[in-house]
Amino acid sequence: MQLYSYFRSSAAYRVRIALNLKEMPYEYIPVHLLNNGGEQHSSHYASLNPMKLLPTLVDKQTVLSQSLAIIEYLEEAYPDTISLLPDNPEERAQVRAISQMIACDVHPLNNLRVLQYLNQSFNVDDTQRQQWYIHWITVGFDALEKVLVKQPGKFCFGDTPSLADCCLVPQVYNAKRFNMSLDSYPHIESVYKHCKDHPAFIQAAPEQQPDMA
Amino acid sequence: MQLYSYFRSSAAYRVRIALNLKEMPYEYIPVHLLNNGGEQHSSHYASLNPMKLLPTLVDKQTVLSQSLAIIEYLEEAYPDTISLLPDNPEERAQVRAISQMIACDVHPLNNLRVLQYLNQSFNVDDTQRQQWYIHWITVGFDALEKVLVKQPGKFCFGDTPSLADCCLVPQVYNAKRFNMSLDSYPHIESVYKHCKDHPAFIQAAPEQQPDMA
Repeated sequence: MQLYSYFRSSAAYRVRIALNLKEMPYEYIPVHLLNNGGEQHSSHYASLNPMKLLPTLVDKQTVLSQSLAIIEYLEEAYPDTISLLPDNPEERAQVRAISQMIACDVHPLNNLRVLQYLNQSFNVDDTQRQQWYIHWITVGFDALEKVLVKQPGKFCFGDTPSLADCCLVPQVYNAKRFNMSLDSYPHIESVYKHCKDHPAFIQAAPEQQPDMA
Repeated sequence: MQLYSYFRSSAAYRVRIALNLKEMPYEYIPVHLLNNGGEQHSSHYASLNPMKLLPTLVDKQTVLSQSLAIIEYLEEAYPDTISLLPDNPEERAQVRAISQMIACDVHPLNNLRVLQYLNQSFNVDDTQRQQWYIHWITVGFDALEKVLVKQPGKFCFGDTPSLADCCLVPQVYNAKRFNMSLDSYPHIESVYKHCKDHPAFIQAAPEQQPDMA
Protein backbone atom coordinates (compact mmCIF):
# COMPACT_ATOMS: atom_id res chain seq x y z
CA MET A 1 0.00 0.00 0.00
CA GLN A 2 1.04 3.55 -0.69
CA LEU A 3 -0.19 6.50 1.36
CA TYR A 4 0.05 9.99 -0.11
CA SER A 5 0.47 12.12 2.97
CA TYR A 6 1.74 15.37 4.43
CA PHE A 7 3.08 15.28 7.97
CA ARG A 8 0.69 17.99 9.16
CA SER A 9 -2.46 16.97 7.24
CA SER A 10 -5.15 16.01 9.76
CA ALA A 11 -6.92 13.71 7.33
CA ALA A 12 -3.70 11.88 6.42
CA TYR A 13 -2.84 11.67 10.13
CA ARG A 14 -6.18 9.86 10.75
CA VAL A 15 -5.33 7.21 8.16
CA ARG A 16 -1.77 6.82 9.47
CA ILE A 17 -3.19 6.07 12.92
CA ALA A 18 -5.67 3.56 11.49
CA LEU A 19 -3.00 1.76 9.43
CA ASN A 20 -0.76 1.58 12.50
CA LEU A 21 -3.56 0.31 14.75
CA LYS A 22 -4.26 -2.37 12.15
CA GLU A 23 -0.54 -3.10 11.90
CA MET A 24 -0.61 -2.68 8.14
CA PRO A 25 2.70 -1.54 6.64
CA TYR A 26 2.65 1.10 3.92
CA GLU A 27 4.92 3.20 1.78
CA TYR A 28 4.84 6.91 2.67
CA ILE A 29 4.69 9.25 -0.32
CA PRO A 30 5.02 12.89 0.73
CA VAL A 31 2.89 15.58 -0.91
CA HIS A 32 3.95 19.00 0.31
CA LEU A 33 0.90 21.24 0.65
CA LEU A 34 2.92 24.48 0.48
CA ASN A 35 6.05 23.90 -1.61
CA ASN A 36 5.91 24.38 -5.39
CA GLY A 37 2.55 26.13 -5.10
CA GLY A 38 1.15 23.07 -3.35
CA GLU A 39 2.17 19.67 -4.70
CA GLN A 40 -1.44 18.47 -4.36
CA HIS A 41 -2.17 20.56 -7.47
CA SER A 42 0.30 18.61 -9.63
CA SER A 43 -1.29 16.81 -12.57
CA HIS A 44 -0.09 13.45 -11.25
CA TYR A 45 -1.66 13.91 -7.84
CA ALA A 46 -4.84 15.49 -9.23
CA SER A 47 -5.28 12.44 -11.47
CA LEU A 48 -5.32 10.25 -8.35
CA ASN A 49 -7.36 12.66 -6.24
CA PRO A 50 -9.47 15.16 -8.24
CA MET A 51 -10.34 17.10 -5.07
CA LYS A 52 -6.59 17.74 -4.68
CA LEU A 53 -6.75 16.98 -0.99
CA LEU A 54 -4.90 14.49 1.16
CA PRO A 55 -4.78 11.60 1.77
CA THR A 56 -4.89 9.12 -1.08
CA LEU A 57 -4.35 5.44 -0.40
CA VAL A 58 -3.38 3.10 -3.22
CA ASP A 59 -4.01 -0.58 -2.56
CA LYS A 60 -2.87 -2.56 -5.61
CA GLN A 61 -5.16 -1.28 -8.40
CA THR A 62 -7.54 0.54 -6.07
CA VAL A 63 -7.13 4.29 -5.59
CA LEU A 64 -8.99 5.60 -2.55
CA SER A 65 -9.69 9.09 -1.29
CA GLN A 66 -11.43 10.59 1.75
CA SER A 67 -9.99 9.57 5.10
CA LEU A 68 -13.17 8.10 6.59
CA ALA A 69 -13.98 6.16 3.42
CA ILE A 70 -10.41 4.82 3.43
CA ILE A 71 -10.61 3.66 7.04
CA GLU A 72 -14.01 1.99 6.45
CA TYR A 73 -12.43 0.27 3.42
CA LEU A 74 -9.59 -1.06 5.58
CA GLU A 75 -12.23 -2.40 7.99
CA GLU A 76 -14.12 -4.20 5.25
CA ALA A 77 -11.30 -5.34 2.96
CA TYR A 78 -9.07 -6.54 5.82
CA PRO A 79 -11.45 -8.01 8.39
CA ASP A 80 -8.65 -9.94 10.09
CA THR A 81 -6.99 -6.74 11.29
CA ILE A 82 -7.93 -5.04 14.57
CA SER A 83 -11.36 -3.46 14.13
CA LEU A 84 -11.89 0.24 14.72
CA LEU A 85 -15.68 0.00 14.93
CA PRO A 86 -17.84 -1.78 17.55
CA ASP A 87 -20.06 -4.70 16.53
CA ASN A 88 -23.62 -3.50 16.90
CA PRO A 89 -25.27 -0.88 14.68
CA GLU A 90 -26.14 1.56 17.49
CA GLU A 91 -22.59 1.65 18.81
CA ARG A 92 -21.11 1.86 15.31
CA ALA A 93 -23.36 4.86 14.69
CA GLN A 94 -22.09 6.55 17.87
CA VAL A 95 -18.46 6.07 16.87
CA ARG A 96 -19.14 7.30 13.34
CA ALA A 97 -21.05 10.30 14.70
CA ILE A 98 -18.13 11.36 16.91
CA SER A 99 -15.80 10.94 13.93
CA GLN A 100 -18.02 13.06 11.72
CA MET A 101 -18.44 15.76 14.35
CA ILE A 102 -14.73 16.33 13.76
CA ALA A 103 -14.36 15.38 10.10
CA CYS A 104 -17.48 17.22 8.87
CA ASP A 105 -18.15 19.96 11.41
CA VAL A 106 -14.72 21.15 12.58
CA HIS A 107 -11.83 20.21 10.37
CA PRO A 108 -13.17 21.34 6.94
CA LEU A 109 -13.47 24.90 8.22
CA ASN A 110 -9.86 25.06 9.33
CA ASN A 111 -8.27 23.46 6.32
CA LEU A 112 -5.31 25.20 4.67
CA ARG A 113 -7.27 26.07 1.51
CA VAL A 114 -9.98 27.75 3.60
CA LEU A 115 -7.50 29.80 5.62
CA GLN A 116 -5.86 30.84 2.36
CA TYR A 117 -9.24 31.95 0.97
CA LEU A 118 -9.98 34.03 4.08
CA ASN A 119 -6.61 35.76 3.71
CA GLN A 120 -6.76 36.37 0.01
CA SER A 121 -10.43 37.17 -0.59
CA PHE A 122 -11.63 38.65 2.70
CA ASN A 123 -8.36 40.28 3.71
CA VAL A 124 -8.64 38.69 7.12
CA ASP A 125 -5.66 39.40 9.40
CA ASP A 126 -3.78 36.89 11.54
CA THR A 127 -5.80 37.66 14.67
CA GLN A 128 -9.14 37.22 12.91
CA ARG A 129 -7.90 34.03 11.28
CA GLN A 130 -6.82 32.68 14.66
CA GLN A 131 -10.24 33.59 16.10
CA TRP A 132 -11.97 31.74 13.25
CA TYR A 133 -9.76 28.70 13.79
CA ILE A 134 -10.33 28.58 17.54
CA HIS A 135 -14.05 29.34 17.16
CA TRP A 136 -14.83 26.20 15.16
CA ILE A 137 -12.72 23.96 17.37
CA THR A 138 -14.46 25.46 20.42
CA VAL A 139 -17.95 24.84 18.98
CA GLY A 140 -16.94 21.28 18.12
CA PHE A 141 -15.17 20.49 21.38
CA ASP A 142 -18.02 21.97 23.47
CA ALA A 143 -20.32 19.43 21.79
CA LEU A 144 -17.82 16.59 21.85
CA GLU A 145 -17.13 17.00 25.56
CA LYS A 146 -20.87 16.56 26.22
CA VAL A 147 -20.81 13.32 24.21
CA LEU A 148 -17.65 11.94 25.81
CA VAL A 149 -18.85 12.64 29.36
CA LYS A 150 -21.48 9.95 28.78
CA GLN A 151 -18.97 7.41 27.48
CA PRO A 152 -17.17 5.26 30.00
CA GLY A 153 -13.73 4.00 29.03
CA LYS A 154 -10.31 5.38 28.29
CA PHE A 155 -10.88 6.19 24.64
CA CYS A 156 -13.66 7.98 22.75
CA PHE A 157 -15.69 4.81 22.83
CA GLY A 158 -14.73 2.11 25.32
CA ASP A 159 -11.29 0.87 26.32
CA THR A 160 -9.79 0.34 22.89
CA PRO A 161 -9.05 2.88 20.14
CA SER A 162 -11.67 3.36 17.44
CA LEU A 163 -12.26 5.41 14.31
CA ALA A 164 -13.30 8.26 16.62
CA ASP A 165 -9.86 8.40 18.23
CA CYS A 166 -8.25 8.45 14.78
CA CYS A 167 -10.19 11.67 14.20
CA LEU A 168 -9.87 13.21 17.65
CA VAL A 169 -6.11 13.11 18.03
CA PRO A 170 -5.23 15.11 14.88
CA GLN A 171 -7.86 17.68 15.87
CA VAL A 172 -6.37 18.04 19.36
CA TYR A 173 -2.93 18.31 17.77
CA ASN A 174 -4.25 21.28 15.73
CA ALA A 175 -5.81 22.88 18.80
CA LYS A 176 -2.53 22.65 20.68
CA ARG A 177 -0.61 24.03 17.73
CA PHE A 178 -2.80 27.13 18.02
CA ASN A 179 -2.16 27.28 21.78
CA MET A 180 -5.74 26.45 22.64
CA SER A 181 -6.27 25.34 26.22
CA LEU A 182 -8.07 22.06 26.84
CA ASP A 183 -8.87 22.96 30.46
CA SER A 184 -12.60 23.13 29.69
CA TYR A 185 -12.50 19.69 28.09
CA PRO A 186 -11.31 17.18 30.71
CA HIS A 187 -12.79 14.20 28.86
CA ILE A 188 -11.22 15.17 25.54
CA GLU A 189 -7.91 15.73 27.30
CA SER A 190 -8.12 12.38 29.08
CA VAL A 191 -8.75 10.49 25.83
CA TYR A 192 -5.92 12.41 24.19
CA LYS A 193 -3.53 11.43 26.98
CA HIS A 194 -4.39 7.76 26.61
CA CYS A 195 -3.87 7.93 22.86
CA LYS A 196 -0.60 9.81 23.19
CA ASP A 197 1.01 6.87 24.98
CA HIS A 198 -0.12 4.31 22.40
CA PRO A 199 2.55 3.21 19.90
CA ALA A 200 0.18 3.42 16.90
CA PHE A 201 -0.54 7.06 17.70
CA ILE A 202 3.09 7.88 18.53
CA GLN A 203 4.29 6.55 15.18
CA ALA A 204 1.55 8.42 13.29
CA ALA A 205 2.38 11.79 14.84
CA PRO A 206 3.50 14.60 12.52
CA GLU A 207 6.96 14.81 14.13
CA GLN A 208 7.62 11.16 13.28
CA GLN A 209 6.96 11.52 9.54
CA PRO A 210 9.73 11.52 6.95
CA ASP A 211 8.60 14.86 5.48
CA MET A 212 8.54 16.65 8.85
CA ALA A 213 9.93 20.09 8.01
CA MET B 1 -38.83 6.79 14.04
CA GLN B 2 -38.69 10.52 14.48
CA LEU B 3 -36.62 12.78 12.25
CA TYR B 4 -35.75 16.25 13.48
CA SER B 5 -35.51 18.21 10.26
CA TYR B 6 -35.69 21.60 8.57
CA PHE B 7 -37.02 21.68 5.04
CA ARG B 8 -33.92 23.41 3.68
CA SER B 9 -31.24 21.59 5.70
CA SER B 10 -29.00 19.66 3.29
CA ALA B 11 -28.02 17.10 5.87
CA ALA B 12 -31.64 16.44 6.87
CA TYR B 13 -32.56 16.26 3.17
CA ARG B 14 -29.99 13.45 2.72
CA VAL B 15 -31.59 11.38 5.48
CA ARG B 16 -35.11 12.05 4.16
CA ILE B 17 -34.03 10.66 0.77
CA ALA B 18 -32.46 7.59 2.40
CA LEU B 19 -35.54 6.88 4.53
CA ASN B 20 -37.76 7.20 1.46
CA LEU B 21 -35.52 4.95 -0.67
CA LYS B 22 -35.67 2.38 2.12
CA GLU B 23 -39.44 2.88 2.38
CA MET B 24 -39.19 3.52 6.11
CA PRO B 25 -41.96 5.74 7.49
CA TYR B 26 -41.05 8.40 10.04
CA GLU B 27 -42.52 11.26 12.00
CA TYR B 28 -41.28 14.68 10.87
CA ILE B 29 -40.36 17.04 13.69
CA PRO B 30 -39.54 20.53 12.39
CA VAL B 31 -36.66 22.50 13.89
CA HIS B 32 -36.59 25.99 12.43
CA LEU B 33 -32.99 27.15 11.97
CA LEU B 34 -33.88 30.86 11.90
CA ASN B 35 -37.02 31.43 13.99
CA ASN B 36 -36.70 32.10 17.71
CA GLY B 37 -32.96 32.66 17.38
CA GLY B 38 -32.63 29.22 15.84
CA GLU B 39 -34.64 26.41 17.40
CA GLN B 40 -31.60 24.11 17.17
CA HIS B 41 -30.20 26.06 20.13
CA SER B 42 -33.15 25.14 22.40
CA SER B 43 -32.18 23.14 25.46
CA HIS B 44 -34.38 20.25 24.37
CA TYR B 45 -32.79 19.95 20.95
CA ALA B 46 -29.26 20.53 22.27
CA SER B 47 -29.77 17.66 24.70
CA LEU B 48 -30.46 15.37 21.74
CA ASN B 49 -27.78 16.86 19.50
CA PRO B 50 -24.98 18.68 21.36
CA MET B 51 -23.56 20.05 18.07
CA LYS B 52 -26.93 21.82 17.60
CA LEU B 53 -27.07 20.80 13.96
CA LEU B 54 -29.64 18.88 11.97
CA PRO B 55 -30.64 16.16 11.56
CA THR B 56 -31.30 13.95 14.56
CA LEU B 57 -32.99 10.58 14.13
CA VAL B 58 -34.61 8.88 17.08
CA ASP B 59 -35.19 5.14 16.68
CA LYS B 60 -36.86 3.84 19.84
CA GLN B 61 -34.24 4.52 22.56
CA THR B 62 -31.43 5.33 20.14
CA VAL B 63 -30.65 8.97 19.40
CA LEU B 64 -28.52 9.41 16.30
CA SER B 65 -26.77 12.42 14.82
CA GLN B 66 -24.66 13.10 11.71
CA SER B 67 -26.40 12.35 8.41
CA LEU B 68 -23.86 9.85 7.06
CA ALA B 69 -23.67 7.97 10.35
CA ILE B 70 -27.47 7.83 10.40
CA ILE B 71 -27.70 6.42 6.87
CA GLU B 72 -24.98 3.82 7.61
CA TYR B 73 -26.99 2.90 10.74
CA LEU B 74 -30.13 2.38 8.63
CA GLU B 75 -28.08 0.12 6.35
CA GLU B 76 -26.84 -2.00 9.23
CA ALA B 77 -29.84 -2.02 11.55
CA TYR B 78 -32.36 -2.66 8.76
CA PRO B 79 -30.60 -4.98 6.32
CA ASP B 80 -33.89 -6.03 4.72
CA THR B 81 -34.46 -2.57 3.28
CA ILE B 82 -33.04 -1.47 -0.10
CA SER B 83 -29.30 -1.02 0.29
CA LEU B 84 -27.64 2.27 -0.53
CA LEU B 85 -24.13 0.83 -0.70
CA PRO B 86 -22.66 -1.71 -3.14
CA ASP B 87 -21.46 -5.10 -1.91
CA ASN B 88 -17.71 -5.12 -2.34
CA PRO B 89 -15.29 -3.02 -0.28
CA GLU B 90 -13.72 -1.17 -3.24
CA GLU B 91 -17.09 -0.06 -4.59
CA ARG B 92 -18.38 0.84 -1.13
CA ALA B 93 -15.30 3.03 -0.70
CA GLN B 94 -15.98 4.80 -3.99
CA VAL B 95 -19.58 5.57 -3.00
CA ARG B 96 -18.50 6.75 0.45
CA ALA B 97 -15.76 8.90 -1.08
CA ILE B 98 -18.22 10.68 -3.40
CA SER B 99 -20.53 11.20 -0.42
CA GLN B 100 -17.73 12.67 1.67
CA MET B 101 -16.51 14.92 -1.14
CA ILE B 102 -19.84 16.66 -0.63
CA ALA B 103 -20.46 16.13 3.09
CA CYS B 104 -16.90 16.96 4.22
CA ASP B 105 -15.43 19.18 1.51
CA VAL B 106 -18.31 21.31 0.23
CA HIS B 107 -21.33 21.48 2.47
CA PRO B 108 -19.66 22.35 5.83
CA LEU B 109 -18.27 25.54 4.32
CA ASN B 110 -21.66 26.77 3.17
CA ASN B 111 -23.63 25.95 6.26
CA LEU B 112 -25.88 28.64 7.76
CA ARG B 113 -23.72 29.05 10.87
CA VAL B 114 -20.65 29.64 8.70
CA LEU B 115 -22.37 32.24 6.53
CA GLN B 116 -23.55 33.97 9.70
CA TYR B 117 -19.99 34.03 11.05
CA LEU B 118 -18.67 35.57 7.81
CA ASN B 119 -21.31 38.28 8.02
CA GLN B 120 -20.94 39.07 11.68
CA SER B 121 -17.20 38.73 12.27
CA PHE B 122 -15.63 39.52 8.91
CA ASN B 123 -18.24 42.02 7.76
CA VAL B 124 -18.52 40.21 4.46
CA ASP B 125 -21.14 41.67 2.12
CA ASP B 126 -23.74 39.75 0.12
CA THR B 127 -21.63 39.62 -3.04
CA GLN B 128 -18.58 38.27 -1.21
CA ARG B 129 -20.74 35.74 0.60
CA GLN B 130 -22.23 34.58 -2.69
CA GLN B 131 -18.70 34.26 -4.15
CA TRP B 132 -17.60 32.16 -1.17
CA TYR B 133 -20.66 29.94 -1.53
CA ILE B 134 -20.21 29.41 -5.26
CA HIS B 135 -16.43 28.97 -4.89
CA TRP B 136 -16.65 25.89 -2.67
CA ILE B 137 -19.38 24.29 -4.75
CA THR B 138 -17.29 24.94 -7.88
CA VAL B 139 -14.18 23.36 -6.37
CA GLY B 140 -16.24 20.37 -5.28
CA PHE B 141 -18.20 19.96 -8.50
CA ASP B 142 -15.05 20.31 -10.65
CA ALA B 143 -13.65 17.31 -8.78
CA LEU B 144 -16.92 15.40 -8.68
CA GLU B 145 -17.48 15.76 -12.42
CA LYS B 146 -14.09 14.10 -12.99
CA VAL B 147 -15.15 11.20 -10.79
CA LEU B 148 -18.60 10.79 -12.33
CA VAL B 149 -17.27 10.81 -15.89
CA LYS B 150 -15.62 7.48 -15.11
CA GLN B 151 -18.79 5.97 -13.67
CA PRO B 152 -21.21 4.32 -16.04
CA GLY B 153 -24.85 4.30 -15.02
CA LYS B 154 -27.65 6.72 -14.42
CA PHE B 155 -26.83 7.53 -10.83
CA CYS B 156 -23.59 8.50 -9.04
CA PHE B 157 -22.66 4.85 -8.92
CA GLY B 158 -24.46 2.43 -11.20
CA ASP B 159 -28.11 2.29 -12.15
CA THR B 160 -29.67 2.48 -8.71
CA PRO B 161 -29.53 5.30 -6.17
CA SER B 162 -26.88 5.12 -3.46
CA LEU B 163 -25.64 7.07 -0.47
CA ALA B 164 -23.77 9.28 -2.95
CA ASP B 165 -27.02 10.39 -4.61
CA CYS B 166 -28.49 11.17 -1.19
CA CYS B 167 -25.63 13.66 -0.79
CA LEU B 168 -25.47 14.97 -4.34
CA VAL B 169 -29.09 16.04 -4.76
CA PRO B 170 -29.25 18.42 -1.76
CA GLN B 171 -25.95 19.97 -2.89
CA VAL B 172 -27.29 20.54 -6.42
CA TYR B 173 -30.44 22.00 -4.88
CA ASN B 174 -28.25 24.53 -3.05
CA ALA B 175 -26.28 25.33 -6.19
CA LYS B 176 -29.51 26.02 -8.08
CA ARG B 177 -30.86 28.13 -5.26
CA PHE B 178 -27.82 30.37 -5.72
CA ASN B 179 -28.41 30.46 -9.51
CA MET B 180 -25.28 28.49 -10.26
CA SER B 181 -25.15 27.05 -13.75
CA LEU B 182 -24.51 23.32 -14.13
CA ASP B 183 -23.49 23.69 -17.80
CA SER B 184 -19.90 22.70 -17.00
CA TYR B 185 -21.06 19.59 -15.18
CA PRO B 186 -23.00 17.41 -17.63
CA HIS B 187 -22.52 14.25 -15.56
CA ILE B 188 -23.67 15.88 -12.35
CA GLU B 189 -26.66 17.35 -14.18
CA SER B 190 -27.53 13.98 -15.72
CA VAL B 191 -27.49 12.22 -12.34
CA TYR B 192 -29.55 15.04 -10.87
CA LYS B 193 -32.17 14.68 -13.60
CA HIS B 194 -32.51 10.95 -12.98
CA CYS B 195 -32.90 11.54 -9.26
CA LYS B 196 -35.41 14.33 -9.75
CA ASP B 197 -37.89 11.93 -11.33
CA HIS B 198 -37.60 9.32 -8.59
CA PRO B 199 -40.45 9.30 -6.05
CA ALA B 200 -38.11 8.94 -3.05
CA PHE B 201 -36.28 12.10 -4.08
CA ILE B 202 -39.46 13.97 -5.00
CA GLN B 203 -40.99 13.31 -1.59
CA ALA B 204 -37.79 14.34 0.20
CA ALA B 205 -37.53 17.69 -1.58
CA PRO B 206 -37.69 20.87 0.53
CA GLU B 207 -40.92 22.05 -1.11
CA GLN B 208 -42.67 18.84 -0.03
CA GLN B 209 -41.90 19.25 3.67
CA PRO B 210 -44.51 20.31 6.23
CA ASP B 211 -42.36 23.20 7.49
CA MET B 212 -41.79 24.64 3.99
CA ALA B 213 -41.99 28.38 4.59
